[in-house]
Amino acid sequence: MFEKEYDVIVVGGGHAGAEATAAAANMGSKTLLVTMNLQTIGQMSCNPAMGGIAKGQIVREIDALGGYSGIVTDKSAIQFKMLNKSKGPAMWSPRAQNDRMRFAEEWRMALENTPNADFYQEMVSGLLVENNKVVGVRTSLGIDIRSKAVVLTNGTFLNGLIHIGEKQFGGGRAGEKAATGITEQLVDIGFDSGRMKTGTPPRVDGRSLDYSKMIIQPGDAVPEKFSYLDTPKLTEQRDCHMTHTSALVHDLLREGFDRSPMFNGRIKSIGPRYCPSIEDKINRFADKDSHQIFVEPEGWNTVEVYVNGFSTSLPEDIQYNALKSVKGFEYVKFFRPGYAIEYDYFPPTQLKHTLETKLVDNLYFAGQINGTTGYEEAASQGLMAGINAHLKISDKEPFILNRDEAYIGVLIDDLITKGTEEPYRMFTSRAEYRTLLRQDNADLRLTPRSYEIGLAKPERLQVMEEKEAKSNAFIEFFRKTSFVPDEINPILESVNSATVKQGDKLFKVFSRPKMTMDHMLQLDSVSNFVSENNLDSEILEQAEIQVKYSGYIAKEKLNADKLQRLENIKIPENFDYSKLKSLSYEAREKLEEIKPVTISQASRISGVSPSDISVLLVFLGR
Amino acid sequence: MFEKEYDVIVVGGGHAGAEATAAAANMGSKTLLVTMNLQTIGQMSCNPAMGGIAKGQIVREIDALGGYSGIVTDKSAIQFKMLNKSKGPAMWSPRAQNDRMRFAEEWRMALENTPNADFYQEMVSGLLVENNKVVGVRTSLGIDIRSKAVVLTNGTFLNGLIHIGEKQFGGGRAGEKAATGITEQLVDIGFDSGRMKTGTPPRVDGRSLDYSKMIIQPGDAVPEKFSYLDTPKLTEQRDCHMTHTSALVHDLLREGFDRSPMFNGRIKSIGPRYCPSIEDKINRFADKDSHQIFVEPEGWNTVEVYVNGFSTSLPEDIQYNALKSVKGFEYVKFFRPGYAIEYDYFPPTQLKHTLETKLVDNLYFAGQINGTTGYEEAASQGLMAGINAHLKISDKEPFILNRDEAYIGVLIDDLITKGTEEPYRMFTSRAEYRTLLRQDNADLRLTPRSYEIGLAKPERLQVMEEKEAKSNAFIEFFRKTSFVPDEINPILESVNSATVKQGDKLFKVFSRPKMTMDHMLQLDSVSNFVSENNLDSEILEQAEIQVKYSGYIAKEKLNADKLQRLENIKIPENFDYSKLKSLSYEAREKLEEIKPVTISQASRISGVSPSDISVLLVFLGR
Repeated sequence: MFEKEYDVIVVGGGHAGAEATAAAANMGSKTLLVTMNLQTIGQMSCNPAMGGIAKGQIVREIDALGGYSGIVTDKSAIQFKMLNKSKGPAMWSPRAQNDRMRFAEEWRMALENTPNADFYQEMVSGLLVENNKVVGVRTSLGIDIRSKAVVLTNGTFLNGLIHIGEKQFGGGRAGEKAATGITEQLVDIGFDSGRMKTGTPPRVDGRSLDYSKMIIQPGDAVPEKFSYLDTPKLTEQRDCHMTHTSALVHDLLREGFDRSPMFNGRIKSIGPRYCPSIEDKINRFADKDSHQIFVEPEGWNTVEVYVNGFSTSLPEDIQYNALKSVKGFEYVKFFRPGYAIEYDYFPPTQLKHTLETKLVDNLYFAGQINGTTGYEEAASQGLMAGINAHLKISDKEPFILNRDEAYIGVLIDDLITKGTEEPYRMFTSRAEYRTLLRQDNADLRLTPRSYEIGLAKPERLQVMEEKEAKSNAFIEFFRKTSFVPDEINPILESVNSATVKQGDKLFKVFSRPKMTMDHMLQLDSVSNFVSENNLDSEILEQAEIQVKYSGYIAKEKLNADKLQRLENIKIPENFDYSKLKSLSYEAREKLEEIKPVTISQASRISGVSPSDISVLLVFLGR
Repeated sequence: MFEKEYDVIVVGGGHAGAEATAAAANMGSKTLLVTMNLQTIGQMSCNPAMGGIAKGQIVREIDALGGYSGIVTDKSAIQFKMLNKSKGPAMWSPRAQNDRMRFAEEWRMALENTPNADFYQEMVSGLLVENNKVVGVRTSLGIDIRSKAVVLTNGTFLNGLIHIGEKQFGGGRAGEKAATGITEQLVDIGFDSGRMKTGTPPRVDGRSLDYSKMIIQPGDAVPEKFSYLDTPKLTEQRDCHMTHTSALVHDLLREGFDRSPMFNGRIKSIGPRYCPSIEDKINRFADKDSHQIFVEPEGWNTVEVYVNGFSTSLPEDIQYNALKSVKGFEYVKFFRPGYAIEYDYFPPTQLKHTLETKLVDNLYFAGQINGTTGYEEAASQGLMAGINAHLKISDKEPFILNRDEAYIGVLIDDLITKGTEEPYRMFTSRAEYRTLLRQDNADLRLTPRSYEIGLAKPERLQVMEEKEAKSNAFIEFFRKTSFVPDEINPILESVNSATVKQGDKLFKVFSRPKMTMDHMLQLDSVSNFVSENNLDSEILEQAEIQVKYSGYIAKEKLNADKLQRLENIKIPENFDYSKLKSLSYEAREKLEEIKPVTISQASRISGVSPSDISVLLVFLGR
């Protein structure tokens, strides 16, 4: 059936599998994507959105490296928002709502247009392993397909078990089959496996909702996009809406708690802390009598709606009765109830930095199989696994991103050094160098590195180099060009900033907190430079950020060095973490449970962030 | 969960379920479509095409009645052909190739835009029956949804079992779950159930084919369409291609016959005779060493290709080795192998003409559950079941189409009076009145009837009435207007038809076999009438057919009357059917097996067509 050996086989066609396939194939590996259903490639299994805080940065990094998630998102977006725009640029985070069907179609088309990528529809039930090295896969029909490397991206499908109230049944997603065989074989080989849980909210009929009772959530007036390449910007957008739960809704939900698989012990595995079910929120934050609900359209034309914030595995009648009491949902019609799903994962401490397993050579894991949650986290691991699978079988050096280079570097380092006992999600607080890891400079950080290993195409490098050259020249202009007091003082006055007595370099006055690029552009010298050099908004933004935040970047590097030196400080026995209210809730819980002996040990605990360590250091007097 | 009772619940979202939902909802019933997966509504499970001989007429009839299959087909078509254009208009049959993804999306959008149609995603595992009357369904989660009527359209999902070579596994389609529970309950109630089998060919990667070795199969130069409404005509089309199997290919396939579930007894149920697997063709037509293969694109952009004519359940290695020897397929890459599927059906003699079951009131069956095969057959039953479910619960007269009104009438009458032991497919030969049941006049035949019961909208009736009025006026013009010999004789000479000495009505000369509308338009009187009345091509075609075939129609009615009178003629015992080569192969086989005592009994055997009966009558001297 498959006469020739493939270079790389990717198992699974979700975000991780699709990126892994594209990366390996684009680098020159003959790659086969094996999936249970070719019509569900690139499915958004949960919310119809990409990006968000820290996650948006990851998508930009994937794009900078030559992955497809950004391009696919841009082509299928129905709304775009730059989150945190009021905060510093390290926090700016792009987010898009997507047309679910279009997103999957764009992914399929992107892969079909990747010449080295082949496709095969069947369930993979096992791996071919010889001398501790993977040499292919075996399908459920008993077909052996040989390859030099295999990337597993099984998502929630490995022994997937769906829960709704007191009922449970096997499945990888609602309406789809679970995958069996792989876990059992890997455990036989010596892998540790565990169970995780995730959940999804009900899907409802948008025609049954009263949007006039909700708060409209439009996209940005001037929408941006994810890809650094020439993808289209949105000219039209669809609105989301916001509403809230109430004490009544919570009471109605509580009526089903005794039948909840979360609370009656049927689900033992841990779900994503930052994407909790509504029953979990009610339980953990008992003092809050309202939670936000975001009503997200599933596409340009469909009436199907995603009820973000109402993830639940309570019995379906409880879901329905409670949701009906949410403002705007009085006459809601369900398309399907929410549910929880338990699935197998493999603690990621069993992996190398390349995402290759320590036990079996040339076998890579990416996505939820490593205990992560989120499309973006999955996609970035798929990309890195695909790249490293190709490099390994080509006898080339591995491609590893450091923590100061990319969120992807933080993600993988966290996973393989700290492991994770609950679904791992990226946050800006997980990164020590987040002022470096901005969404605006992912191309500057990563495109040259990707070009070096043969993934990013010359055109992508060229776009990035042009941007870099132009913004550097502009920054240099600010460094070299002087102003005279008469021209700058009216501008300074207009922002209530102290006027100056004598001229100085533009850089200096631009560094003042209240001064923005818009203010600088009021100077003839600046506006002339911009028009003479034909600088677009992206260059202006880049130069502005680099001028205004140069101080922060230097400071951050200093802090990072300090952290390194102070890492071995002892923590007193029976230290009372509960009095440190500035620690995150998660960190307090974990520290109390594990009681680390040193700061170094504390820092390696999953969920204890660099900011938590800073808090501890301050408290311990360092 | 579902507080209010629905009027109609439709189980299944394929061609039958989608039409049933649309019909019931558009007539005013609050209708709920329950499907295992909302993302597979309107899936083309097998070939990416609609229509064809007799089937194209059915799609036109569905459209004339106000169903959506024609509209959805037009909106997603990538190629259009009017088959049999060289034969008489009774044989003209529209056929379209479709974009598989677009087709499903258009169906979903059509249903979402049907205000009375609601959706729910879950498996239905049983019916709620009280006092021999269905009152709703029960889902696999145990949710009871009450309704006044239920339409079952389960396709191949009821206890679906997929076979490839020696392997078998449960599933409703490749990669999807089977449905359980319904058959068992219906059998308990007293229904007979049986098993049928169907199959599908491999899907392959179009990038791996050499089309230069195949014969190109373009669409019509001037493509028409299915809907009588204002849907768009294709301005661009995608080509299909044709290639052939060979003696070598057949030898390679034969190597797997001992492992074939068809030949080793594992599959006991009967598959569609006129859509046989390639192994079946080799077996039944052992003298032929070549069969046609049509290579059909799956959409505008996708590289996926459907290998029509190569349906098979042989082991996947045999499929691959054999297909590689087909011209143009030397380097073929499989997306997935072909397979056979067995599923439960209910012999349709258990139904009334309305498709309501005799045993359980208000319960309707439509599609493959009734033992039919084909999208068009399924869709038309769904439409009729949806209509009749609505009429029944509204205490209105049932809507039944007679055999001289519609192929749909022939289909349902055949099913419920003859039953079927193998998947039933429509043919023009199954219709006694096929000159009446043309694709061009389905609107004239059916739109007024559908308007009467409240399904076809006033605009649809108006379009049809305008067409009728204009073509009638044009026919009347031919009847009343005379020609003079001098103007007609040059035209008659040009087609080698005898010239005339004296004038006569236009109708008479137009009736001559060689005279077409194009010839008539050379007469000033005719062309003036056309331009004065602004007649379009559809009117010209309609008038031409009605003028030229008026004789045939009369003759056909006479034949039908004869058949009726002669129906009770005895057939001699041990009659040797094998000498009647003009009987169809199927008829001979069935007649030999059943040995009917009378012509009447013979005519009721499934697969014995009216033409076969004519042959018998001739041979018996009547």
